[in-house]
Amino acid sequence: MLSNMTSERSAVLSGADEWLDLLQDWVRIPSVSADPAHSADVAASAQFLADRLRATGFPQVKVLDDGPWLPAVLASWPSGDPNAVRVLVYGHHDVQPADGVDRWTHPPFEPRILDGVLYGRGASDDKGNIAMHLLGLSAHLAATGRTAPAVDLTLLVEGEEESGSPHIKELLTSHREELAADLIVVSDTGIFGSGTPSVCIGMRGLVAAEIHVHGPDVDLHSGSFGGAVPNPITELTRILGALHDENRRIAVPGFYDDVVDPTDAERAATAALPFDEHAWITGPAASRIAAGEAGWSTLERIGARPTAEINGIWGGYTGPGNKTIVPTDAYAKVTFRLVGRQQPEKIAQQVTAFVADTVRPGVTAEIHWEGGGVAPLYVDTTHPATTAARKALGLAFDTDEVLMTREGGSGPEADLAEAIGAPLVFLGVMTDDDQIHAPNEKAPVRLLLKGCEAVAHLWRDLAEVGRDGLK
Amino acid sequence: MLSNMTSERSAVLSGADEWLDLLQDWVRIPSVSADPAHSADVAASAQFLADRLRATGFPQVKVLDDGPWLPAVLASWPSGDPNAVRVLVYGHHDVQPADGVDRWTHPPFEPRILDGVLYGRGASDDKGNIAMHLLGLSAHLAATGRTAPAVDLTLLVEGEEESGSPHIKELLTSHREELAADLIVVSDTGIFGSGTPSVCIGMRGLVAAEIHVHGPDVDLHSGSFGGAVPNPITELTRILGALHDENRRIAVPGFYDDVVDPTDAERAATAALPFDEHAWITGPAASRIAAGEAGWSTLERIGARPTAEINGIWGGYTGPGNKTIVPTDAYAKVTFRLVGRQQPEKIAQQVTAFVADTVRPGVTAEIHWEGGGVAPLYVDTTHPATTAARKALGLAFDTDEVLMTREGGSGPEADLAEAIGAPLVFLGVMTDDDQIHAPNEKAPVRLLLKGCEAVAHLWRDLAEVGRDGLK
Repeated sequence: MLSNMTSERSAVLSGADEWLDLLQDWVRIPSVSADPAHSADVAASAQFLADRLRATGFPQVKVLDDGPWLPAVLASWPSGDPNAVRVLVYGHHDVQPADGVDRWTHPPFEPRILDGVLYGRGASDDKGNIAMHLLGLSAHLAATGRTAPAVDLTLLVEGEEESGSPHIKELLTSHREELAADLIVVSDTGIFGSGTPSVCIGMRGLVAAEIHVHGPDVDLHSGSFGGAVPNPITELTRILGALHDENRRIAVPGFYDDVVDPTDAERAATAALPFDEHAWITGPAASRIAAGEAGWSTLERIGARPTAEINGIWGGYTGPGNKTIVPTDAYAKVTFRLVGRQQPEKIAQQVTAFVADTVRPGVTAEIHWEGGGVAPLYVDTTHPATTAARKALGLAFDTDEVLMTREGGSGPEADLAEAIGAPLVFLGVMTDDDQIHAPNEKAPVRLLLKGCEAVAHLWRDLAEVGRDGLK
Repeated sequence: MLSNMTSERSAVLSGADEWLDLLQDWVRIPSVSADPAHSADVAASAQFLADRLRATGFPQVKVLDDGPWLPAVLASWPSGDPNAVRVLVYGHHDVQPADGVDRWTHPPFEPRILDGVLYGRGASDDKGNIAMHLLGLSAHLAATGRTAPAVDLTLLVEGEEESGSPHIKELLTSHREELAADLIVVSDTGIFGSGTPSVCIGMRGLVAAEIHVHGPDVDLHSGSFGGAVPNPITELTRILGALHDENRRIAVPGFYDDVVDPTDAERAATAALPFDEHAWITGPAASRIAAGEAGWSTLERIGARPTAEINGIWGGYTGPGNKTIVPTDAYAKVTFRLVGRQQPEKIAQQVTAFVADTVRPGVTAEIHWEGGGVAPLYVDTTHPATTAARKALGLAFDTDEVLMTREGGSGPEADLAEAIGAPLVFLGVMTDDDQIHAPNEKAPVRLLLKGCEAVAHLWRDLAEVGRDGLK
């Protein structure tokens, strides 16, 4: 398909400069949900989005701060047609912490555009993806000549996704009626590559824990006591060192019980994806080798297999020089990605039992589970909404070939689909190259604008499919 | 033996109040050698000691800042008798870091005496032990009516012991002539219990390392990359988790080659010590159980067996909430205590090889050895100087029974004995209860004064033994 200057594209391009200013203003707000010191910033970020949604024309906009959650934004714009498709867009306005600030080329919350790339924390994940719905909707209206969208549009943009969406179920329940929808469109994922558009058809579940091993009640001189009392760091490394076996499989008993292995056809489709592993290792993965569970490819390890990842560890003396102590405490942060029918509660029970069975007498090992976690989610690849999302991306990227991929990330999508009782599709334009969750997060402006355009195409197309067509 | 008001004791008691003020003034100086931010404090601490030595009457006092070491103090006071025993006293004026300040009942560098106990960083290790030589010498002069000590007395008080004495060999070499001695008296150890005086007859060696495992060059999103690239924390915990076997023996190949097992007689003597393990666990060790290398008692694990202790660990995200990353780096600080003929250089080579053999491809593991370490030291239990030290302590503690024990700690004593070419004895009054290297370090005033008195007795007794008697 040749490049096609649709009226949607024309509208996106004419609004691009103003929209990029808006997105940068938003990125300037350090809405880090994990850090209580930034709670006012999360509130300011919600207010910023609410104001911009009103300015775009949304007649109903609310900042939801009526529960235990950090402020979320709920906005809706009815089509005026009682039979229109009701669409719920989901994303988040909170961002990952920006620690390791010295490894950012530019300060994380002072966004700038260099050589067509927007840099800043949240540029991609997820302010970039959510902001697409502002310009995308404007372009939809301009292209169709409408004064209201062709679908009944509701946006729910939460403020706790990077902290594991601990209150999403309560939020969905307490605003159930306003969130009723025939289709959920999630904008918090990416495409296979900057020249290879794709829709996500699966996300892994996630459950997060902090393990705390307590040894002596005071730091002890390692000469006077070392070797004769248990060292909590030694015990923690022993537990964590036993988390995987020599094949890098997770050694927690029962962990794989509810994993659903991909079919031969799925494995073949994955193997056929245009994946350049060498480029991936040396580029986005910034690693020396690919390594993971024996018997699976890199893409399968990311999309189809569960993981146990140690995200942080600390304990004892970590200052300059050395301090010869048996320390009192050791801690680790661990997250588990889940697939198939694995459920966070059951995994949490299995890991808790594993830690209890592995720890030796003389220290205590406590495991604190952060929130209830999220279950894995799979998209029906044959659903008309999936087809519509692929078509919209194809129009934006001037191609007929829009792939379907599994993402390794996690979000509250399974909870969302269950609570709303509607099918779910993903529409986002992040790439593996965007350094999300890392220093120097970025988003190519070209891809962001493709995303805006895809949004505009999707609303028109879904209106043509109609509510009955989605059933 | 009944309590005996010797003239030495009388002199110590009459000088005690002024001396305790002096010691507290010294403890107020935060001479933390491990932290470069405190280098001026280490210098101030040396100057403080030099001034007080001059005030005590030492005719020759120098602050040694003529090398790469942190300032040390060298003081000497000849007896006036060309045939007198030449004694070199060794200790240190630097202190351990006082991190975990929130766990100190009182600020670490604001000493105070409560219920007969002096609290503060360095109260015991080692300012308390070194200050004993000021009042001890004054008491020796008062009790004997002398205007100079009965031995040729030289004090070397270094400023880097808590950092592993990285320059002690150079310091000893460059001041070789001034340090010539017939006997070394080390005041940096303790006694078996507050009612059980003892002299130390062995100290373990020490070698310290920092292990650094480097994985991806940027923090990676654990959803997009987790499970498919090596995680440096996982790899570090795997290495450290393999450092000991299931019997808590160190699994580094060759590690035990040069350990000298205690004889049956030594094991029997150790077993006969009045050691209340339950009281030790619940008291000074602040632990739940005693645990260590299978087949050895607690006292043997501390005094006669080598150890591998993880003193600190860090890497990845350690802030509030969670951050779903595969981090770039993981670090650990590890120290090894050595016994018998184990040498720091060889152990460092073995551990380096173990790390290289254990780490898996895809991450790098570097091991940085901090200084050259120190070798183990053993005292000749039948040497007249050992007998003299036991006699001096017995006089101070009003007992004929002064035990001989091995300490688990480490210092540069082996280097010292080798460089000076003289026998070495220990005279110190720390106890396991003193929280050295921990918050709330303390020293009972009663024991400090016993130490002062023992010093006074020792100089008189050594003069009686004479230089020929020490050969």
